[in-house]
Amino acid sequence: LSAIRAPRGSALSARSWQTEAPLRMLLNNLDPEVAEHPQELVVYGGSGRAARSHDALRAIVRTLLRLADDETLLVQSGKPVGVFRTHEGAPRVLIANSLLVPAWASWSEFRRLEAAGLTMFGQMTAGSWIYIGTQGILQGTYQTFCAAGERHFGSPDLSGRTILTAGLGGMGGAQPLAATMAGAAILCVDVDQRSIDRRLATRYVDEQAGTLDDALARVRAAAAARRPLSVALRGNAADVFPELVARGERFDLVTDQTAAHDPLTGYVPAEVPFEEAAGLRARDPQRYLELASQSIVAHVRAMCDFVRMGCYVFDYGNNLRGEARAGGLEEAFSYPGFVPAYIRPLFCRGIGPFRWAALSGDPADIAVIDRALRALFPDDVLLQRWLAMAPGKVAFQGLPARICWLGYGDRVKAGLAINELVRVGEVSAPVVIGRDHLDSGSVASPYRETEAMQDGSDAIADWPILNALLNTAAGATWVSVHHGGGVGIGNSIHAGMVVLADGTADAAARLERVLTADPGTGVMRHADAGYEEALDAARAGGLDLPSAPL
Amino acid sequence: LSAIRAPRGSALSARSWQTEAPLRMLLNNLDPEVAEHPQELVVYGGSGRAARSHDALRAIVRTLLRLADDETLLVQSGKPVGVFRTHEGAPRVLIANSLLVPAWASWSEFRRLEAAGLTMFGQMTAGSWIYIGTQGILQGTYQTFCAAGERHFGSPDLSGRTILTAGLGGMGGAQPLAATMAGAAILCVDVDQRSIDRRLATRYVDEQAGTLDDALARVRAAAAARRPLSVALRGNAADVFPELVARGERFDLVTDQTAAHDPLTGYVPAEVPFEEAAGLRARDPQRYLELASQSIVAHVRAMCDFVRMGCYVFDYGNNLRGEARAGGLEEAFSYPGFVPAYIRPLFCRGIGPFRWAALSGDPADIAVIDRALRALFPDDVLLQRWLAMAPGKVAFQGLPARICWLGYGDRVKAGLAINELVRVGEVSAPVVIGRDHLDSGSVASPYRETEAMQDGSDAIADWPILNALLNTAAGATWVSVHHGGGVGIGNSIHAGMVVLADGTADAAARLERVLTADPGTGVMRHADAGYEEALDAARAGGLDLPSAPL
Ligand SMILES: NC(=O)c1ccc[n+]([C@@H]2O[C@H](COP(=O)([O-])OP(=O)(O)OC[C@H]3O[C@@H](n4cnc5c(N)ncnc54)[C@H](O)[C@@H]3O)[C@@H](O)[C@H]2O)c1
Ligand SMILES: NC(=O)c1ccc[n+]([C@@H]2O[C@H](COP(=O)([O-])OP(=O)(O)OC[C@H]3O[C@@H](n4cnc5c(N)ncnc54)[C@H](O)[C@@H]3O)[C@@H](O)[C@H]2O)c1
Repeated sequence: LSAIRAPRGSALSARSWQTEAPLRMLLNNLDPEVAEHPQELVVYGGSGRAARSHDALRAIVRTLLRLADDETLLVQSGKPVGVFRTHEGAPRVLIANSLLVPAWASWSEFRRLEAAGLTMFGQMTAGSWIYIGTQGILQGTYQTFCAAGERHFGSPDLSGRTILTAGLGGMGGAQPLAATMAGAAILCVDVDQRSIDRRLATRYVDEQAGTLDDALARVRAAAAARRPLSVALRGNAADVFPELVARGERFDLVTDQTAAHDPLTGYVPAEVPFEEAAGLRARDPQRYLELASQSIVAHVRAMCDFVRMGCYVFDYGNNLRGEARAGGLEEAFSYPGFVPAYIRPLFCRGIGPFRWAALSGDPADIAVIDRALRALFPDDVLLQRWLAMAPGKVAFQGLPARICWLGYGDRVKAGLAINELVRVGEVSAPVVIGRDHLDSGSVASPYRETEAMQDGSDAIADWPILNALLNTAAGATWVSVHHGGGVGIGNSIHAGMVVLADGTADAAARLERVLTADPGTGVMRHADAGYEEALDAARAGGLDLPSAPL
Repeated sequence: LSAIRAPRGSALSARSWQTEAPLRMLLNNLDPEVAEHPQELVVYGGSGRAARSHDALRAIVRTLLRLADDETLLVQSGKPVGVFRTHEGAPRVLIANSLLVPAWASWSEFRRLEAAGLTMFGQMTAGSWIYIGTQGILQGTYQTFCAAGERHFGSPDLSGRTILTAGLGGMGGAQPLAATMAGAAILCVDVDQRSIDRRLATRYVDEQAGTLDDALARVRAAAAARRPLSVALRGNAADVFPELVARGERFDLVTDQTAAHDPLTGYVPAEVPFEEAAGLRARDPQRYLELASQSIVAHVRAMCDFVRMGCYVFDYGNNLRGEARAGGLEEAFSYPGFVPAYIRPLFCRGIGPFRWAALSGDPADIAVIDRALRALFPDDVLLQRWLAMAPGKVAFQGLPARICWLGYGDRVKAGLAINELVRVGEVSAPVVIGRDHLDSGSVASPYRETEAMQDGSDAIADWPILNALLNTAAGATWVSVHHGGGVGIGNSIHAGMVVLADGTADAAARLERVLTADPGTGVMRHADAGYEEALDAARAGGLDLPSAPL
């Protein structure tokens, strides 16, 4: 099994689309265009795998090829362990990945069991066969910027708005393109010219400025003209951010995506010339960490100054605030994390990273759906802008796919519309519809998605289990429960689902149930925590929540 | 809601039996005959609750009364949080109790969240509405003794065999009756006359002997005559066991159920007269613990001597061996725990604590089923003996119910037979069929059910999650996932299911699927761990296990 690629076209390898769909999506996760290390079956996110071993992969494929439409395959941490008779309305595949009894849920025990061949790290969409490449992080960043715009300025359209950030690495490098797609003018500081060059080459960042004055002039001019623009500046954030404060330069949004969660390898201290950082790190890590801590303190002090200057500042999940507080800066937590600030209000309405993939392999199928959804949601500014620009800016990886954050009510509308397009033949083969595990009702993760819930329920893990059980009951095509995705072993429990749109009436009924129930659990979970936005969404959507004050 | 009692008879309060069944079983769990502290909604097992609060209980009842047959109610730690449209073949209730993100899975965090009203301890069958009173522990003990007989003497019939044990407390008190039901002559040592009196009063123990000589004479005579007999002796095990060794008195089986897991309150040191134990415990706990440790060492040293004398000795899950080793006895672990020794071989064949309850409330319904199952399994010696004696020895608590350990293949046979009895009217109203979470495929619990798995997979928790997802897919009537049952928060993950037998063809189809799949996951889990018994059972039962060497 080398150079894996999912089958394309409308001819079946498996016995029906119900089983062809998971087969193609499993193989697609391991397509070299999609997976980071396909030979090791690693899809993304550290060691997130699609199958436990090459043997297990072959056994899953063989089983899916013969599976009947009233049977269900059980996958235990990437290995196929059983086939049982269920019924046609039940899922075809049920997956449990990386789960440990809590008192044993450490990386060391996990690695021991992994080495013994007993488990596998599934991350979120790696082991549940619905990863679609880097489009996800781009759209997530776009969504975050737009949500900030909506919250602070009443519109997701950031035209005329300015953003300051740092870090153009693997994930942070999505910021300039996400910002310009949202209409903004953004200044991106990175200390490493290679990170800047990579983003210039793929056109994720528009231009590089030679000096801070030059960079500021370009950003200000673009914002004044309401022209989207991304400008990279080589520099150290711990120097540049305080300098901007000293000059009194305001930005509408300020954030940071240096890899400060790991200060030794991910954060370069300002006192050390970039060229000497690697040497010092190797020679004297203790000294390196001291200097990094000092720089992080200066960096976050400037972020806090921006707060006082009236900018909207947020932490982007890299623990920069935590490092600064550890370094002695008391006020470090005076600005919020991105989840409570911007993502949670979306979760309250069941909005999250919805996505679909064309099993045909034909990009035209995605184009047809893009157009149909733009027609279906004419008033969704954010969706309109995203779907207008994504086709030009996002290269497909593996099977053509699209991500688009949609909420309770809209997901079922979109799903039924897609199924109808398959039915009438405008889309050439069935489509799968799924989402990330990082979603409204499907994750318990106190360091990220459920950080600082207003009722203190961050660590309650009943919710993702109920989500998985309900998606199974509602008839999703495959359902998964994982542990440790995003924030590591011990720190999260989360669930996934994918449902097939093959144009049949049966699929329409399943889509209706699953795409109502699945985001519905997100509204439910946030309503139970007392969020007014969720209670409003529940009322508006007619949700049936027996204990909620509706 | 005081003095709760489930409705009886064949008239519906809810809209169908699908919803009447969980309603009656929830209320039955809180019947004062069944529950330990019904006012606090505590059913059994410390603080194992059926609902989070009286408000939550009322809301569950209200919701079940109106729930339609294509809807599913979600219960989050004893509180009803949502109703979603699923379909007629899906479960009516999905339950997740006490689950925490692993790194937060401690008693202290759990109690904090419980006090904040956000969670509830569900134990195993308390929060999943299928507790049936003390019949469970009696039958589990009977099953363990019989399994030991089968393993060591080739027959579950212990007629003519002798057993030595200690501890006649809440759980240990089931030993004398379980032993006599299995045919054995048993000597039970307890230091507390009140524990003995309680068991004499309920006829769980037949007689008390005044001296060790007297006790031995009675036990030996009964065994010689192949007459079942239980004899209590007041004494301290740490004195009596070594004395028996010194006298060269052999027993076929030797075990112990003093509450040694908590030596300060559960184990009385030999050096302290019983009447003074409470005083010393209060005055000088440190001294008490030293003396208890010395006694436990003497007690276990005698157990090890029994091993050398050719007796079959096993630990009954009270950590007596661990305390002895902590006290310095190196050889303490020279005899096995009861799960790896006797229960696991049953789990390999999908055998576990299967049970059913008559929703009619009519004991005659259980009698009809008892007779039918005896006719159905004429060669199952253990079942024959149990079902012959249980009606006379076991008083029903709440709705009449029966527990009987059955395995893969037999469960589906029994379920279909029961459904047929309902269909033809020999049983007067529908019956629910379920099981404990302590079962073959439904629990990960490294200190108990999955201790010392031969492949080292004790802590892998994918299995109970797959079990719950599959039971949901197969169409059980309600399905539950819990955390912390049996061995406490952090130490277990487990799943439950209950399925309705209402005599319809639809119920027959669901029973067929669920009662095949559910024990099937147990055979699967043990086959995956490499147990030969499980691989044999999989071959014999025609299980479809894609990765197993079948
Ligand atoms: N919680 C979330 O959902 C989420 C989402 C995206 C990113 N993140 C976090 O964002 C961070 C970035 O992730 P990544 O994959 O892009 O990391 P990366 O290591 O690929 O990139 C980090 C970049 O920061 C630059 N950098 C380091 N120190 C600097 C300094 N002092 N000044 C200017 N630039 C500096 C580096 O040159 C590099 O280009 C991580 O901490 C990640 O965990 C979190
Ligand atoms: N793992 C399992 O599945 C499982 C099943 C059943 C019981 N257990 C364990 O068995 C133990 C007993 O449970 P219980 O509910 O009956 O406890 P309990 O506290 O109700 O009863 C303990 C009894 O032991 C007697 N006792 C204490 N020290 C003694 C001594 N030195 N000599 C003689 N008698 C002595 C007490 O008088 C009392 O009657 C517990 O440790 C429990 O955890 C485990």
